[in-house]
Amino acid sequence: MEILEGSITAPAGFAAAGIHAGLKKAKKDMAAIVSACDAVTAATFTTNKVKAAPVIWDQGVLKGGMARAVIVNSGNANACTGEDGLRDAETTAGIAASLLGTEKGKVYVSSTGVIGVKLDMERIVSGVRTLCPLVSADGGHEAAEAICTTDTFTKEAAASVMIGNVKVTVGGMAKGSGMIHPNMATMLSYITTDAVISQETLQHLLGATVEDTFNMISVDGDTSTNDTCIVLANGMAGNAEILYGTKEYEEFSEAFRHVLGTLARMITRDGEGAGRFIEMKVSNALSKEDARKLARSVVSSSLVKAAFFGSDANWGRIMCAMGYSGADFDPSLVDLSFTSPAGTIEVVHSGDPVPFDEDEAKRILLEKEITVAADCHQGASSAVAWGCDLTYDYVRINGDYRS
Amino acid sequence: MEILEGSITAPAGFAAAGIHAGLKKAKKDMAAIVSACDAVTAATFTTNKVKAAPVIWDQGVLKGGMARAVIVNSGNANACTGEDGLRDAETTAGIAASLLGTEKGKVYVSSTGVIGVKLDMERIVSGVRTLCPLVSADGGHEAAEAICTTDTFTKEAAASVMIGNVKVTVGGMAKGSGMIHPNMATMLSYITTDAVISQETLQHLLGATVEDTFNMISVDGDTSTNDTCIVLANGMAGNAEILYGTKEYEEFSEAFRHVLGTLARMITRDGEGAGRFIEMKVSNALSKEDARKLARSVVSSSLVKAAFFGSDANWGRIMCAMGYSGADFDPSLVDLSFTSPAGTIEVVHSGDPVPFDEDEAKRILLEKEITVAADCHQGASSAVAWGCDLTYDYVRINGDYRS
Repeated sequence: MEILEGSITAPAGFAAAGIHAGLKKAKKDMAAIVSACDAVTAATFTTNKVKAAPVIWDQGVLKGGMARAVIVNSGNANACTGEDGLRDAETTAGIAASLLGTEKGKVYVSSTGVIGVKLDMERIVSGVRTLCPLVSADGGHEAAEAICTTDTFTKEAAASVMIGNVKVTVGGMAKGSGMIHPNMATMLSYITTDAVISQETLQHLLGATVEDTFNMISVDGDTSTNDTCIVLANGMAGNAEILYGTKEYEEFSEAFRHVLGTLARMITRDGEGAGRFIEMKVSNALSKEDARKLARSVVSSSLVKAAFFGSDANWGRIMCAMGYSGADFDPSLVDLSFTSPAGTIEVVHSGDPVPFDEDEAKRILLEKEITVAADCHQGASSAVAWGCDLTYDYVRINGDYRS
Repeated sequence: MEILEGSITAPAGFAAAGIHAGLKKAKKDMAAIVSACDAVTAATFTTNKVKAAPVIWDQGVLKGGMARAVIVNSGNANACTGEDGLRDAETTAGIAASLLGTEKGKVYVSSTGVIGVKLDMERIVSGVRTLCPLVSADGGHEAAEAICTTDTFTKEAAASVMIGNVKVTVGGMAKGSGMIHPNMATMLSYITTDAVISQETLQHLLGATVEDTFNMISVDGDTSTNDTCIVLANGMAGNAEILYGTKEYEEFSEAFRHVLGTLARMITRDGEGAGRFIEMKVSNALSKEDARKLARSVVSSSLVKAAFFGSDANWGRIMCAMGYSGADFDPSLVDLSFTSPAGTIEVVHSGDPVPFDEDEAKRILLEKEITVAADCHQGASSAVAWGCDLTYDYVRINGDYRS
């Protein structure tokens, strides 16, 4: 696998653009991704019972099985907008389809921003008219900018892998920041690839990869109304079809997982107000599901997150969060340690506190990237989850204005 | 029912005391509750897999069915302290038992404070020796002070009710503040009554009442290792035994529910750093369980809590939190409104946004006590949950020092 610069336009046959359509005051607020030909598509959406209108539209596109384009707007989530919202999503897809010479059923639509306010369709329609002729292979970064809300940097990743003697590329972009929590982490993400792969295989790969990437991150425990991860595979690499269970599938998975994992970690690094990046590694748990529950519970705990904000080696809160995770494990067997570029310190051994030097612990926890390792000493399953600290800025960002 | 001043010593035959034993720097840190005779006992404990040593000890006391006293310390949770912790809990009970002329199996022990540090048994033992001779019918308030950690005020409540022509009294005290979340809300609480009632009936009443009181509050989503609610019923009122399903049971329930409900609301009012008290009322849900899930999810959402901190009528986050609650409901039927002493404002009607005056909304949400009402228009079940806003102070309290 080769890690590449670039993002959604790295694979062959994808073009993109990002513009300011007037939904936000000054920043870019609309993006388009267009494939040169019909692409096989897979997707996962929010598990929230309150689904934004574009999510409902996109579930129909996914059923159709083929897609040509995605239109995204930021600044307004088109959620809790009733029948009008659904009609607006369909209208947006329809206008893009006519401009791109395809059917509206092949155009995904995404929205992110404030909930409960109807879309300004005049600006959306004029935005789509500007966007569609503008897409190019150089437009990936601008598209990544246009989908941001409170994000402080764009999330982009790409990788390539040889399938036989054909180079196949995967690219992706995401937006995150607030309302980020496991169960289809609250975010928008778009993955493109020029691989030849069937819809069934692609959907299977997406489901398995999301479990270990986007579903293992948490910023604030809120699962949004708009969570979306859409994959387009246009086949333009011309490789022999990637079949489930083959060596080629594993190789392709590696690149796919790199892109989704990189985007997921970028989202937590850029959590609203986050000052520290927390990686929680659970090993030797009884089952994969137990390992996942333990890791996710720790990065989701407000008390753990506040302790990391204060660089406090408060491992009791970590044991506590593992305890209420719902996972099966024996607390009396657990080893726990903190690691950062400044060193490693063990704080619990076989469930018992290990005396440690508070100054050394502080030095380790003052770093910006910290790994917590919990060894359960019971089974052979492991999992990793990613999160961030809880800061004054999180409260300010989410208390001071409607977002 | 008559609402009374006082707390755990309001019922006949209960004495209490609170002292400074040196576990905390200056504040009171040990309390005792003593019944004049053996009392029937019921209790519920944390669902956390990591249980503090005193919780494990207390589960044994509960099995015995009768109790005489409770010894509580703050400043140290005696959690994650291994075999030593269990021995320390037993030693504490044993010393109190010999001073009170009872068996150690009839003495409950509770601890609250930092996790993972062994108890200073010298101070605990000397504390118990000071406490036991000191208990009196006037000591309820001092005991309530001594169980506090980051609490800013004591939580005390009492009520009486006539059973036949005999007055029966219920009293209670609690500590809360951090690590407060549904599923045996993270807190210590002690309920006393002079009622004649069987253990089975008392345990049933406790389970049912906790469901609608302590289990409906949330401060920060963390379920602690030490959650405890202990009830002692010493029978000294001399009423005819309260039997399940009778009119007398209902009357006694009312007083019991008043005490637990009052303590639960006090805990959220005093949530760490809390500036606002949020009441979430769900009506006409499909089932009681759906109503509970909806109400709890809203008061537990970091994004909702941050919006209340900013007095922002961000009802979209409320719909979103209802959506991921796991409850069965139809978002398109929901009515949503905010009420405070400054007025009422409807923001959603049949799932559609209702245009409202932002200044009026701000005026309503600037009040200290706010009720959110969600009418599901689907069934006949209702539930109420209580929470607080997420503030800079919560982050400061939990980030700045180990608690």
